[in-house]
Amino acid sequence: MSQKAVVICSGGLDSTTLLYYVKLKRHLTPVVVSFNYGQAHQKELNCIKSLSKSLKLEHIIVDLSKFGRLLKSSLTQTSIQTPLTHYTHQTQQITVVPFRNSWMLLIAAGIARSKDINLVFYGAHRNDQTVYADCRPIFVEQINKLLEVADYQQVKVEAPFISLTKAQIVKLGYELGVDFRRTWSCYLGRRYPCLKCGTCQERIEAFEKNDLRDPLVGERRWKKILKKLK
Amino acid sequence: MSQKAVVICSGGLDSTTLLYYVKLKRHLTPVVVSFNYGQAHQKELNCIKSLSKSLKLEHIIVDLSKFGRLLKSSLTQTSIQTPLTHYTHQTQQITVVPFRNSWMLLIAAGIARSKDINLVFYGAHRNDQTVYADCRPIFVEQINKLLEVADYQQVKVEAPFISLTKAQIVKLGYELGVDFRRTWSCYLGRRYPCLKCGTCQERIEAFEKNDLRDPLVGERRWKKILKKLK
Repeated sequence: MSQKAVVICSGGLDSTTLLYYVKLKRHLTPVVVSFNYGQAHQKELNCIKSLSKSLKLEHIIVDLSKFGRLLKSSLTQTSIQTPLTHYTHQTQQITVVPFRNSWMLLIAAGIARSKDINLVFYGAHRNDQTVYADCRPIFVEQINKLLEVADYQQVKVEAPFISLTKAQIVKLGYELGVDFRRTWSCYLGRRYPCLKCGTCQERIEAFEKNDLRDPLVGERRWKKILKKLK
Repeated sequence: MSQKAVVICSGGLDSTTLLYYVKLKRHLTPVVVSFNYGQAHQKELNCIKSLSKSLKLEHIIVDLSKFGRLLKSSLTQTSIQTPLTHYTHQTQQITVVPFRNSWMLLIAAGIARSKDINLVFYGAHRNDQTVYADCRPIFVEQINKLLEVADYQQVKVEAPFISLTKAQIVKLGYELGVDFRRTWSCYLGRRYPCLKCGTCQERIEAFEKNDLRDPLVGERRWKKILKKLK
């Protein structure tokens, strides 16, 4: 059996592609770690749960749902509305879950160390950086510097997609055989993607740039979306 | 009302003294944050819960009990025995909860940011540093460097006891009027302190160096302990 690595996987498009990348390109056995922090879009957790099962991977859902409610964000507090506008720094600010990626990474590092695993994969990518400070290369650098001094045993974080755009991730995922029907992005987490929130719009653009249709969207609706984009 | 600050408080001697310090010396209103990570010594949580109530302070217990069981440590897994020997690096290694102080601090920072508070107090002190890498000044430096890049809004961690010994903290606590009967240290978390585990021994020494008796220990038993120490 190949060496193990923890892969933080939300069930979204980026981290699911990361999972395939770790398995197929890095030839490591992923231990999938997901977080239930009470996010409105719990649907993403169902995606990764069923996918991990299909791929016969160990999957840990860290239950932080009670804690999540304490955090001020449209993703964790129903009283705050998720902005249904284009993906910009200003509009998306309220979707930031305070220090989420920081505590996720440290918790994942704790799980890794408990399993004698020394590598944690993190799916941050380039598009996110304008909104989310913790998707920047300098953040990954600092997390690793922290990990170096936080314990006498080493765990390292790798973010191989940090310089890729979401469109490039879709391309990679397509090549690796990711079934995008089994990923979820929409912040609202309803039956169908809202196609209006920031992450829906980002996802649409990523597929469109690859001349692909998002398989979560029907053909007729997709054509309408493309018309609007032009 | 004075400015607020988050104080991470386990219910132990150090962080309870920190709470008094923040309130009385720094003239800030503490928002007390404690963590239930399934620690064997849940008793410490009862201490801080009742103390916060007496002091009329907002108290948040972050429930990570399900997550805690995933972590390999004698404090979180009943199958691993807590060493009942003197406090040294080697013997206490198994009491390390992987990256606990790191994720605690980041979670506390998330709570702080959600409440528009920009300061988190952390009770690390000098004695802990031989065992716990995350009680060293360099760790606090790195946490702050991480916080600087992890969000576009700032939260800072302060560890005012980082260069104090536990004996010096007992002295300070005594001066500030801390009721040490309402603090708990013993890792075993039984009815009475075991007086054998590393943290019990550290606590005994801290009181002894101040010519004080730990009020959790009866007078007769205390005299016996002092005899053994000599």
